[in-house]
Amino acid sequence: MVRVVLLGQGYAGSIFAIGIERIKKGEIEPYGVPLANELDEKIENIEIVGSYDVDEEKVGKTVYDVAQNYWEGNIPESLKEIEVKRGVHLGSLKSLPLQAKGLEEEMGLKDAINVLVSEWKEVKAEIIVNVCTTEKAQPFGNKESIIRAVEEERSERLCASQIYAYAASEYAKERSGATFINMIPALIANDPGYIALAEERNLVIFGDDGATGATPLTADLLTHMAQRNRKVLSVAQFNIGGNMDFLALVDEERNKCKELTKSSIVKDILGYDAPHFIKPTGYLEPLGDKKFISLHMEIISFNGAVDEFIVNGRINDSPALAGLLVDLVRLGKIAMRKREFGTVYDVNAFYMKNPGPESAINIPRILAYEKMRKWAELDPKHKV
Amino acid sequence: MVRVVLLGQGYAGSIFAIGIERIKKGEIEPYGVPLANELDEKIENIEIVGSYDVDEEKVGKTVYDVAQNYWEGNIPESLKEIEVKRGVHLGSLKSLPLQAKGLEEEMGLKDAINVLVSEWKEVKAEIIVNVCTTEKAQPFGNKESIIRAVEEERSERLCASQIYAYAASEYAKERSGATFINMIPALIANDPGYIALAEERNLVIFGDDGATGATPLTADLLTHMAQRNRKVLSVAQFNIGGNMDFLALVDEERNKCKELTKSSIVKDILGYDAPHFIKPTGYLEPLGDKKFISLHMEIISFNGAVDEFIVNGRINDSPALAGLLVDLVRLGKIAMRKREFGTVYDVNAFYMKNPGPESAINIPRILAYEKMRKWAELDPKHKV
Amino acid sequence: MVRVVLLGQGYAGSIFAIGIERIKKGEIEPYGVPLANELDEKIENIEIVGSYDVDEEKVGKTVYDVAQNYWEGNIPESLKEIEVKRGVHLGSLKSLPLQAKGLEEEMGLKDAINVLVSEWKEVKAEIIVNVCTTEKAQPFGNKESIIRAVEEERSERLCASQIYAYAASEYAKERSGATFINMIPALIANDPGYIALAEERNLVIFGDDGATGATPLTADLLTHMAQRNRKVLSVAQFNIGGNMDFLALVDEERNKCKELTKSSIVKDILGYDAPHFIKPTGYLEPLGDKKFISLHMEIISFNGAVDEFIVNGRINDSPALAGLLVDLVRLGKIAMRKREFGTVYDVNAFYMKNPGPESAINIPRILAYEKMRKWAELDPKHKV
Amino acid sequence: MVRVVLLGQGYAGSIFAIGIERIKKGEIEPYGVPLANELDEKIENIEIVGSYDVDEEKVGKTVYDVAQNYWEGNIPESLKEIEVKRGVHLGSLKSLPLQAKGLEEEMGLKDAINVLVSEWKEVKAEIIVNVCTTEKAQPFGNKESIIRAVEEERSERLCASQIYAYAASEYAKERSGATFINMIPALIANDPGYIALAEERNLVIFGDDGATGATPLTADLLTHMAQRNRKVLSVAQFNIGGNMDFLALVDEERNKCKELTKSSIVKDILGYDAPHFIKPTGYLEPLGDKKFISLHMEIISFNGAVDEFIVNGRINDSPALAGLLVDLVRLGKIAMRKREFGTVYDVNAFYMKNPGPESAINIPRILAYEKMRKWAELDPKHKV
Repeated sequence: MVRVVLLGQGYAGSIFAIGIERIKKGEIEPYGVPLANELDEKIENIEIVGSYDVDEEKVGKTVYDVAQNYWEGNIPESLKEIEVKRGVHLGSLKSLPLQAKGLEEEMGLKDAINVLVSEWKEVKAEIIVNVCTTEKAQPFGNKESIIRAVEEERSERLCASQIYAYAASEYAKERSGATFINMIPALIANDPGYIALAEERNLVIFGDDGATGATPLTADLLTHMAQRNRKVLSVAQFNIGGNMDFLALVDEERNKCKELTKSSIVKDILGYDAPHFIKPTGYLEPLGDKKFISLHMEIISFNGAVDEFIVNGRINDSPALAGLLVDLVRLGKIAMRKREFGTVYDVNAFYMKNPGPESAINIPRILAYEKMRKWAELDPKHKV
Repeated sequence: MVRVVLLGQGYAGSIFAIGIERIKKGEIEPYGVPLANELDEKIENIEIVGSYDVDEEKVGKTVYDVAQNYWEGNIPESLKEIEVKRGVHLGSLKSLPLQAKGLEEEMGLKDAINVLVSEWKEVKAEIIVNVCTTEKAQPFGNKESIIRAVEEERSERLCASQIYAYAASEYAKERSGATFINMIPALIANDPGYIALAEERNLVIFGDDGATGATPLTADLLTHMAQRNRKVLSVAQFNIGGNMDFLALVDEERNKCKELTKSSIVKDILGYDAPHFIKPTGYLEPLGDKKFISLHMEIISFNGAVDEFIVNGRINDSPALAGLLVDLVRLGKIAMRKREFGTVYDVNAFYMKNPGPESAINIPRILAYEKMRKWAELDPKHKV
Repeated sequence: MVRVVLLGQGYAGSIFAIGIERIKKGEIEPYGVPLANELDEKIENIEIVGSYDVDEEKVGKTVYDVAQNYWEGNIPESLKEIEVKRGVHLGSLKSLPLQAKGLEEEMGLKDAINVLVSEWKEVKAEIIVNVCTTEKAQPFGNKESIIRAVEEERSERLCASQIYAYAASEYAKERSGATFINMIPALIANDPGYIALAEERNLVIFGDDGATGATPLTADLLTHMAQRNRKVLSVAQFNIGGNMDFLALVDEERNKCKELTKSSIVKDILGYDAPHFIKPTGYLEPLGDKKFISLHMEIISFNGAVDEFIVNGRINDSPALAGLLVDLVRLGKIAMRKREFGTVYDVNAFYMKNPGPESAINIPRILAYEKMRKWAELDPKHKV
Repeated sequence: MVRVVLLGQGYAGSIFAIGIERIKKGEIEPYGVPLANELDEKIENIEIVGSYDVDEEKVGKTVYDVAQNYWEGNIPESLKEIEVKRGVHLGSLKSLPLQAKGLEEEMGLKDAINVLVSEWKEVKAEIIVNVCTTEKAQPFGNKESIIRAVEEERSERLCASQIYAYAASEYAKERSGATFINMIPALIANDPGYIALAEERNLVIFGDDGATGATPLTADLLTHMAQRNRKVLSVAQFNIGGNMDFLALVDEERNKCKELTKSSIVKDILGYDAPHFIKPTGYLEPLGDKKFISLHMEIISFNGAVDEFIVNGRINDSPALAGLLVDLVRLGKIAMRKREFGTVYDVNAFYMKNPGPESAINIPRILAYEKMRKWAELDPKHKV
């Protein structure tokens, strides 16, 4: 069994829940799940045991009810058993067109953390997954500052993801082990403070920012150019979509945060900082969860010849993230078994846009994939 | 020194010659040359010592003169010293709008081979490079059939590339070592007959069909999908260009030959034969050497979501090939030093569309690259 | 009332039937129908009164049953009332993977024509629509040759479309008026023989080859360039799809036929024959009816600058055709009322890839649209 | 003769100057000039008689010297005769990486206007062309406010384009006729105040914002959809380039101004405001003047089918603008001859992104083109 708690019952969380149940029922193949059924821990073993949100339209409802907003097919009945509880807000949904209220508004931050920890104990949670809406976060850098900020209940300094990660560390400590998976750009696995906390308290952290969409593809294309010693002259990458995450990114501060995690790949892969424009570009409601991406790259080939590449795509954002999550929750179990507390670069390097720890760089995804398999004690996919 | 003979003084051969000389003069960086100056054998050491063609407009002229057709910049003066000699034709340019005549029409096949071998001895050739126009070829399968066909001068059964490869084996035998690099789709490194011949006679063969253009990129994209367990529903790939090679491919038989080498990657990489349409599509004169490619791919992601990718590109065909050649002629020297006669999969897997030997499959290029580096005794590019 | 007979109960015919009924039921808006409800003759007035095919899997079934193959939604019950009758084959589906048998195999050509005419009388057909699979056709050029070929029952010289058009002329003669709409590339409206026949026998012919997909879009793009006096250097256009029509085009002879109608637009619009490669490219089953198109265009702008445009699209082939048909069957009624027998260029110029009569050229679609409106006595759409 | 003064000696102004001279010398064809040599007033008659800028690197140099920055070919010697004079700044280049100083800083606004007018008299200017960098402008709405703002020298309220247009009106008044062509997004032809001023003072105004790049193409594509009654679900359009104009648009306020003129076409053409994201997206230096555009459009076709179109392009920005200008300066002469003072919608509708007057809407370019020809007393291009 893999007992999962979802923080944020939005698009990604709902598709994750629906897809897991459909796989259990044999309705669909596990496409989009990199390791499919190669792990000892089967997809069928995943159990969602808790769900949190701060949207007043969701809190108190079941995951079954909430999932109606995100999928037109038949929602599995089993999701009626999971209630969406109130989570931490701290203004993370500020400026978005919805009513949100967090636990901390009812009882203060420290009590909110206690409530979370005790609820997680009750359901015997193993894996805590952060799929809440992209929010602005400022890393702390060291453990002490985090503890102090929580102690002093500095709600203007902390964001929801940071509180959740902190609560996970408290929970792990009491339980001798838990995993926190950060699928959003807020820096957790890249914050040395959280890594120190995690190492000390038996928490595994995977993060940051699930590697979906155009960025891992761009990474592979850049690798393609680098391996042929083609000089990259420029890279432009646009993204536009109609889900809540794109709406959230209209906010300039959240956007900056996202830009950072996307943009670092150019230098990491090429070894030089080719001029680039890589950032989420806009919100266009009718596109929904199926974003449109456009990538332009110009390169110098042999004898000064200039080549040009354009990639366009329509990509379902949430299923891509949810598919990775199906692996990550199971890899969390493996990491706990191995007692690799702190963060696990071998996992992050393939699954995350901004793989922690802070000092780590992006490596070609195709190589990262084999590295990750090795860590998971699987045979290489490609015998070379 | 790396002493190179070019078979076919067309676009690729001319850009190769120009680029090498410009690098020697410090005019350009070695972009498009995967290993650049990482090898002990420097690019500056490459010397073109012979050139062959069958086009009456070229035979007897210097490489300097011929190169004018393919590049608008200043052609290096040093190319005035290499004369284009008459090579073997055997109808390989049949149906193309030019006057061609082969050595074999003057003296018969066996004598033609003898002439080639003796000319190569004179210039102390080490590396024989086949960059002639795509031609139809039928593999022999075993050594004996090749020897018999040559012996009996069966010119309707043999194509120019096969004669050239045979002559190279004769030459290698007398010289205790030479390298034959087959950059076109004719099956040489994939013909067990030629491999047997090469092993016996101290010939290194690299081949077949230099991995330029859309195919290696498609391979990397397919790998991207495979590693995420995304189910590929369909792949369509078009190519259109205006150089002699595209004109040659208008001929249905040559086209089939090309389609074969391009199309096998789908199954090799994915492990299943996703429906695909991958073949050179047409000739459009104004595009010149800068072909237009278009690739469409549809995939299933998690929970049945369907994603779509489109890649368009403008790619300079000949510089891409020439850049690979700059590595291959030097890797030929290494293979001879190591006495790895026959063919070298570790090299072919990265540089060739249809890597020999026949039994070998396409592996992800990004992995093949590191494998090749290892063979060449270089450090991994990406520390993983 | 507009009483329609469909020749060919394939994808386009089925979507036409389904769409009409759904509009009647108020389920959908008339999107994709250029004139929507601007005409006096409303969409609701269209009645399908007959259907023909030669596929043994279809003959004898109802349109309701056949339509299941082409649409996943709920098929309107009203389509249960229309039976698919046996039509004319003449080898038009030869080489396709299905069992086909034509009326003429049961009774000879002339009797087959008589059967058709008498069945059409019975249902009081007004508009005969040819949406059968693309077939090879050789125009006759004059009326006498057509009559003689039919008289002599020369089945190797005639194709199904030609027999259908002939039968329509016989029917029109006896009934003082009918309309034949040729949505496939076989030359009917471009055959002076058929036009003469139609003028004499009170038949309206609209044709040839419904203007769907990439071609009208290419026409508008070329117009865009022409109006800015940008010199078009090259045009490449690819099409690939997975419906029966693409499968039929794998056959080289049918393909040539299609290429002809697509390719003429370049010279017609630009006034000079810019180098181009425009032809249906391939069959890829999983794409189904939603074809992939790719268009590349290179142009010279002011001061010698070279610009480049690429258009990619996914287009549902049959709905596009069916939408045009909803107008054409109603415009047929208007033409009959006006007694404009023969063919009507003002209609063809907008709706057809190869607008008849033979002497006519392609004009910019955007202008053709307003011209057509004028003919239909509608106000200009855009007041200029 | 057509005597032209350029306000802004940047990319567009320089390419205009170079192209005109090369056409005079017979070096190039007038590609990119919509009316080429159809007008009585030939391209050869155009004479640049004055040039203005505020960049300290340009003022005092010749157009020949300045043009070196924008073109690699041989600059025509005749451009040595035109000196770049100091123009009006008013902070229009604020925040850009260059040193700028305006006439008004030396002498006050009213004196600056007087200097301009007297210099224009000296060179007998007929056509005043505004091709300065995109700047923020706030329209006045009525004549009196403009006059008052100038009278009171309110430099924080006025922008450079507004001062230039005002000076042109002063000049026209004294000379009984002049033309002001506004190629940038600042609202001049769309400011009722300027139109009133122009009517009163014998000034012709063409504007606003030359219709180059993706916007007119988008307009034609939207027309294509509208004429087939396809419902446009969404339109996303990105632009990225590396010239000064894109750098200027990084500034949020200038960007808003541009977005406005681009975005209005959706509703104007379709008749309903389909959800869209159309704005200049970013600056990427290596792209230079050859911008990359990407357009995505999703539509509903017949029977609810959803189609998708993607357009990508590389477009040379300044040549496109310069080509239009070659027509506009000559059409200015025609307008003056016809005494059509104020603005001329028939010209603006084809050549401008935001055609004045304010009340006018965007019409399909392809129709606007024929309308413009009619105004210019030319035969229709396409006989329909």
